[in-house]
Amino acid sequence: MARNNYTKPKQNGILPSETVAAEKSTEKTAAKRPQRNRRGGGEKKTGKIRIASLGGLHEVGKNMTMIEYGDDIIVVDCGIAFPDEDMLGVDLVIPDITYLEKNQEKIRGILLTHGHEDHIGSLPYVLRSINPDIYGTALTLGIVEKKLSEHSLPHTPKLHTVQAGDKVTLGKLSAEFVRVNHSIADACAIAIRTPLGVLFHTGDFKLDLTPIDGKMMDLTRIGEIGNEGVLLLMGESTNAERPGYTPSERTVGRSLSDIFLKNPDKRLVIATFSSNVHRVQQIISLSAQNGRKVAVLGRSMINIIAAASALGYMTVPDGVLIDIKDIKRYPESQVTLVTTGSQGEPMSALYRLAFGDNDRVTLGQKDLVVISASAIPGNEKSVGKIINALIANGVSVMHDPETDVHVSGHACREELKLMHALTRPKYFMPIHGELRHLDAHRKIAREMGMPDENIFVSDIGKVLEIDKKGARFAGTVPSGKVLVDGFGVGDVGSIVLRDRKHLSQDGLIVVVAAVDLDARLLSSGPDIISRGFVYVRESEELMDAAREIALDAINKCLDSGRTDWMEIKTTVKDALGKYLYQKTHRKPMILPVIMDV
Amino acid sequence: MARNNYTKPKQNGILPSETVAAEKSTEKTAAKRPQRNRRGGGEKKTGKIRIASLGGLHEVGKNMTMIEYGDDIIVVDCGIAFPDEDMLGVDLVIPDITYLEKNQEKIRGILLTHGHEDHIGSLPYVLRSINPDIYGTALTLGIVEKKLSEHSLPHTPKLHTVQAGDKVTLGKLSAEFVRVNHSIADACAIAIRTPLGVLFHTGDFKLDLTPIDGKMMDLTRIGEIGNEGVLLLMGESTNAERPGYTPSERTVGRSLSDIFLKNPDKRLVIATFSSNVHRVQQIISLSAQNGRKVAVLGRSMINIIAAASALGYMTVPDGVLIDIKDIKRYPESQVTLVTTGSQGEPMSALYRLAFGDNDRVTLGQKDLVVISASAIPGNEKSVGKIINALIANGVSVMHDPETDVHVSGHACREELKLMHALTRPKYFMPIHGELRHLDAHRKIAREMGMPDENIFVSDIGKVLEIDKKGARFAGTVPSGKVLVDGFGVGDVGSIVLRDRKHLSQDGLIVVVAAVDLDARLLSSGPDIISRGFVYVRESEELMDAAREIALDAINKCLDSGRTDWMEIKTTVKDALGKYLYQKTHRKPMILPVIMDV
Repeated sequence: MARNNYTKPKQNGILPSETVAAEKSTEKTAAKRPQRNRRGGGEKKTGKIRIASLGGLHEVGKNMTMIEYGDDIIVVDCGIAFPDEDMLGVDLVIPDITYLEKNQEKIRGILLTHGHEDHIGSLPYVLRSINPDIYGTALTLGIVEKKLSEHSLPHTPKLHTVQAGDKVTLGKLSAEFVRVNHSIADACAIAIRTPLGVLFHTGDFKLDLTPIDGKMMDLTRIGEIGNEGVLLLMGESTNAERPGYTPSERTVGRSLSDIFLKNPDKRLVIATFSSNVHRVQQIISLSAQNGRKVAVLGRSMINIIAAASALGYMTVPDGVLIDIKDIKRYPESQVTLVTTGSQGEPMSALYRLAFGDNDRVTLGQKDLVVISASAIPGNEKSVGKIINALIANGVSVMHDPETDVHVSGHACREELKLMHALTRPKYFMPIHGELRHLDAHRKIAREMGMPDENIFVSDIGKVLEIDKKGARFAGTVPSGKVLVDGFGVGDVGSIVLRDRKHLSQDGLIVVVAAVDLDARLLSSGPDIISRGFVYVRESEELMDAAREIALDAINKCLDSGRTDWMEIKTTVKDALGKYLYQKTHRKPMILPVIMDV
Repeated sequence: MARNNYTKPKQNGILPSETVAAEKSTEKTAAKRPQRNRRGGGEKKTGKIRIASLGGLHEVGKNMTMIEYGDDIIVVDCGIAFPDEDMLGVDLVIPDITYLEKNQEKIRGILLTHGHEDHIGSLPYVLRSINPDIYGTALTLGIVEKKLSEHSLPHTPKLHTVQAGDKVTLGKLSAEFVRVNHSIADACAIAIRTPLGVLFHTGDFKLDLTPIDGKMMDLTRIGEIGNEGVLLLMGESTNAERPGYTPSERTVGRSLSDIFLKNPDKRLVIATFSSNVHRVQQIISLSAQNGRKVAVLGRSMINIIAAASALGYMTVPDGVLIDIKDIKRYPESQVTLVTTGSQGEPMSALYRLAFGDNDRVTLGQKDLVVISASAIPGNEKSVGKIINALIANGVSVMHDPETDVHVSGHACREELKLMHALTRPKYFMPIHGELRHLDAHRKIAREMGMPDENIFVSDIGKVLEIDKKGARFAGTVPSGKVLVDGFGVGDVGSIVLRDRKHLSQDGLIVVVAAVDLDARLLSSGPDIISRGFVYVRESEELMDAAREIALDAINKCLDSGRTDWMEIKTTVKDALGKYLYQKTHRKPMILPVIMDV
């Protein structure tokens, strides 16, 4: 695929950091003295900004925000969400991009804030129908490239690498990438300059005063942009319900260091998110300091360590990394295993280790497993299952919050206030989160003195329109949850899910019969086939009775001349449904199959 | 049903508190100087104690522990568990009581520690096949009575009310109920005296130094029993992973009081566990103090308040409780609603309120909802859904842990240590919890100085045998998870669940065809019916192709003379399965229905 570093394509130009000042001053003027022109076409300096999130509002994940000004559209992020419990059999959820497909000639670029799935995961699906330029930092695009290589796409993706501080011209808009801290390296907020003013999109962020890579969130630059005048702040809301500050990633290093020192005789097995490059870096560094070799388990962990090392985001001392097949060469006390599966995902590396399903490693009393992650809501039980399985094998287990081996990647309330204080936006739209999170962030904005009418708690598809006169909600664009199941994108909808739910609760009864409609005679059956209803071998009486009920229903129809297909089927369904509910208090799906022979 | 208060049945006698001392001294002697007799039948004073939990080990819920000595069996608790995620369509889970059914003439009683579902919920199912005497405190049996009245049972249950301090003679064993604190009133630990010594079963407990009803856990009595000599401690482990002490229920009252004072203009809607009588008492008292009327929502809440008030566990000032239909007579600021649904249960009172599905009450900006409970693992998402729906209606929401409106009912580590310190048991078996909890409790016992070989982390069905020589695991009794689905008890097993799982993931394809086997001709079909697979109207091409594949498979069988039913079905299934997986990456259940006509 096309990977341009610091190139300047014809329409869209990436300007390295040094040009920022000049660029800024120009746009500042534009923002301050827009010309008053009429709405619609042409090269006007005023006009309307239309902002609509296609994902990430009233939900966790599939973050995607669209910004439209005249003939220019830019998109920030392109993530997936994981399916809700009631989306049975669904693999993942992506945004509805109908609006982007219809307006693809306007799209000047997709800007990626960082490389997490909920910000980049929809790209392989979105790039099936549109192929805009994609901008992101090196690690972000490294992860994107790997992901896209696993899909066959109709066009070569146009990936453009930027670094924090870079600006990109995108039609009449431009974007500046601003460094933030997060649980993945190389994360950025994005300042989008429009003729009406600056829109500041925080991406996911936290403030880490002692970051592992020494690269603190660029508070100064954010303050400068604030001084320039921010028209709209779009601020992430994940931890808006949590008071205080999120601790530095470095605090995890201290906890881990204690664990290394206190457990010199154990093999250490540390599970974390593969994308948490700094966490993995700390584990590798601590292992090297403590004379341990590091073996890596889990495909995504192996991929990310390879990408991050190649791109310079990680420093692995020579000879520290070993192949998993070589671990037997070292005493257990001189080995650290770094593994995926911290969320208890079935078939992840940690899951396999816990259930004795790894050919090369068997965990036992010599092992200490550290789960350096907190369970995402909904995953508590899966993580618990792994912890129990490990303990059953005599393995020692340490996990958050018991032992401070994890910190969040998202800003808590005081950090969110800092963001508001530095950007001092005119308008505010909380993004990234369920309503409870957006609402908590709204309250923070109020506390910071913002009037209620300047705060816009939006929903996916809802258009926030901003012009010289003010800001307001104005209509919608198509939006929704597009379900991906296997190769199918969007072919599983509410009817299919309703049927899956029905089948999952009480199973299925198929009633098969052959009738001779002309002679009004049953020629074969009815037979009853059931799946997921009762254990048939122990319920022969019930199944026999069900057969009688079906037989009766069919005969009644035939005898009374009601030989319409639908009528026979409905009669069988009703009679059998009623009988089975009365006997079992269950409502299996009933499928009558009546053949005319 | 039979409800005997302080009666003395022929075989089993409840002795009121004042007789405890005499009783104790007798049994103390027996415990100290047991006669050395051979194993098996007869009236021997030594022998073996066999202890097996039928539930509550390696799982949360369905707590049930069986204690057998010679010809006497007593059972502590009889609870249900809620189904795991993979038990699709299952309503609840009860213990396998095969062993009790086979030995029912030996059962001297079921002793209930308290009235929570995970301790009493299986009674309606267990009492279908056995009918032993049941002992519990007044509130516990009040709840049991209500529950049993909703089931039709073959025999009248024999319920015997006891109070903390009472002793019950049960064959050669006896049981003393000892007051503990918990998140339901009238909870007890049980000291079981055997000829070999005292077995102390903690039930669920916490230490509340400032209990709402003034009735603190009876530390003194537990210490006295400890002095008497405890052979085995069976200690609950729910919070064994948590450091420190669980705060007093009274701390919740203080938080709630603040909320009442700070929100004089709001209608307060407080959701909590209906069985938390003290919590409800605090809400009612605070409402009365603040000049509010209280209306109750949710069937179980209404039932428990009625039962608890009637039995004297709650004091409701005159005129404070009003019917929900009368709330419109009072200004919203003078009303408190107490409701069920704190776990986000669909169709609970709070759920209906949140989704505008209550005819009498509509929540809005005048309402403050307080969720005075913490989400049980697995329920976080359901609770979150309700919070979001409430906020969407402009309702203010406060919830734990943000606002200290809940405390646990279970002992944390320091309280568990206190229990060990007071009982000073010879042997210890952690109960109530997943392995991680049992293991954490094991570590506490070790910290308290107990040798590893005296700690028995057991599993359901595993028999712990204790005699004069020592304690050891010795064999098993039948045990397991019996699934209740509708009226069916135990008719849903692994095959049914596997089918439900399969159906829930990728749905179903039914292939229907009629063949003339003699003529080796397809006479009708094949037709394809699908449910939960794809949205058929948008997948006509796929369904047509599937039909062709099935047609091909059947014809190939007929042409080559392979006219065995199973062979035709397998051929269709394989061909279609392979094709559909290749096209969709899904594996629907395929049911070939081939009729011979």
